[in-house]
Amino acid sequence: MKKITTIGGGTGQYVLLSGLKDVEDVEITAIVSMVDSGGSTGRLRDELGVLPPGDILKCTVALSPFQDVARRILQTKLSGSDKLNGHNAGNMLLSMLSQYAGNFPEGVRALGEILSIKGRVLPVTIDRATLVAELTNGIRLYGESAIDIPRGDQREKIKEVYLVPHHSEIISVYDPVIEAIEEADYLIIGPGDIYTSIIPNFLVPGVKEAIKDTKAKLIYVTNVMTKYGETDGFTPFDFLCTIENYIGRNVDYVIVNNQKPPEEILNRYGEQRASFVLLNEEQREKIKPRLLIEEDLVEIGEVIRHNSIKLSSVIKNIF
Amino acid sequence: MKKITTIGGGTGQYVLLSGLKDVEDVEITAIVSMVDSGGSTGRLRDELGVLPPGDILKCTVALSPFQDVARRILQTKLSGSDKLNGHNAGNMLLSMLSQYAGNFPEGVRALGEILSIKGRVLPVTIDRATLVAELTNGIRLYGESAIDIPRGDQREKIKEVYLVPHHSEIISVYDPVIEAIEEADYLIIGPGDIYTSIIPNFLVPGVKEAIKDTKAKLIYVTNVMTKYGETDGFTPFDFLCTIENYIGRNVDYVIVNNQKPPEEILNRYGEQRASFVLLNEEQREKIKPRLLIEEDLVEIGEVIRHNSIKLSSVIKNIF
Repeated sequence: MKKITTIGGGTGQYVLLSGLKDVEDVEITAIVSMVDSGGSTGRLRDELGVLPPGDILKCTVALSPFQDVARRILQTKLSGSDKLNGHNAGNMLLSMLSQYAGNFPEGVRALGEILSIKGRVLPVTIDRATLVAELTNGIRLYGESAIDIPRGDQREKIKEVYLVPHHSEIISVYDPVIEAIEEADYLIIGPGDIYTSIIPNFLVPGVKEAIKDTKAKLIYVTNVMTKYGETDGFTPFDFLCTIENYIGRNVDYVIVNNQKPPEEILNRYGEQRASFVLLNEEQREKIKPRLLIEEDLVEIGEVIRHNSIKLSSVIKNIF
Repeated sequence: MKKITTIGGGTGQYVLLSGLKDVEDVEITAIVSMVDSGGSTGRLRDELGVLPPGDILKCTVALSPFQDVARRILQTKLSGSDKLNGHNAGNMLLSMLSQYAGNFPEGVRALGEILSIKGRVLPVTIDRATLVAELTNGIRLYGESAIDIPRGDQREKIKEVYLVPHHSEIISVYDPVIEAIEEADYLIIGPGDIYTSIIPNFLVPGVKEAIKDTKAKLIYVTNVMTKYGETDGFTPFDFLCTIENYIGRNVDYVIVNNQKPPEEILNRYGEQRASFVLLNEEQREKIKPRLLIEEDLVEIGEVIRHNSIKLSSVIKNIF
């Protein structure tokens, strides 16, 4: 039984976990960033993919054998009385469970139990915080939604992201997270938006240190497409360096997609200033001495994303 | 679009609704008795059929397109913290939703919305009450569980059942129930334990009167097996008379199973003093002038019960 810990958030981790749960002899722990600002406006891509909002919910659903039904059930928008009206069933159930159980992680655990999930889902912290991005021109953006969807044409690059706690002087890591990193055989980072889904995990004090100390092999899955305002023009090596910069060490494996989507879909992405993350000879050289795994990993639909089965079988081969 | 109202509780109504939801052009309202004492000890038969406890939950699950998954999810027994430990997920979610929404029917409605049910489920009352059975020897039994499972060999027949309110002088009907009875095109009574699942509905003031006044055609589905301590030696006509006695009028259609289960299964039931409800010529005569429909309606498994598809297609033919 291999201990696999994933770290991320958003749709990327949903896709990863959806496939990973069917790999045999693994014990999965999903560490999830907690800066999803949760508004529906910022969630356009997710709504295209029809996922329930909330990174914790996504990961829980991904690990459930009842995934499809659970997704439909939890994304129900309730009508009815003032108090329920407009609420998303998943968010509401999770918050009710947490309230009843007395704390958020226990609510998360209970929801996982109800959905018979394979593995467990851990919030990286249970302290509330706002994600701040500082751009190269000094402008600060507040909150995941603001960072996620660039407003205006000429948004500068992100220089740095950091977390600002709401109610305490420092943000505390949720303890089991440290253990899950230290005791893992493999730690899988990504895929996912690096500044809004992945890096927010590393910003919680103690996480970076645990990643430095872990005996686990580190696997990083790069993104298939760049994202305007976050990773414009990024190469696989740029993604990699950004991640390694935040964790302060090299990863062991880099998984890169090498299947280019059809031009007409890339053109549509081009309108949103997103482009294909291209792996070439120069990139291959730069990625060494890390182990590079390049495969066709994509699923082409309304959106371009990793295919959960393709991705999990590549990862399974590493184990 | 025909308006179909069912009235009952327990496993019988679960089976009925499971089939009925797939009939086209019907608008289903399920009226559910609220005396399920809910302890797991009294629920042996249901556990054999692996249903979530709680009649409201059963009916809600039965009407969901996600029936199988919903059943598995809602019957999860939670572990974890003191507060959640041992709770059945369905009971807990329903009570949390009700608490949050401010009242029980709204919680029931929200759960129905989450599970995308076809139709609606109405508690017959939202007042708490204890079901009392008075036996022919004057002994009184308190609570559905006590009535449901006879203790001792020589239990007398039930002379009468009545409801004793907990917190009010009278029990009030939940208003939409009256409307659902009055405006129905067909009112289906049973199948189900008559004293603990069906008749408790008629004991709520106003229900009997609405049934007398309704323009709906009344359909009664008799049980397949008798039950020790409740309906020992009952013929189809005995079932029918007991029901008609409580509602104070005749029904229009009587649906009776005519398929005898194999002897070895009947023998097993015999050990529990339950016997097959036999339809013969004498019974047929007595049931007239009501319309008698006799068909193979049973499903033979661990337990003998109505088969939801067989039952709903017989009922569909009446519409």
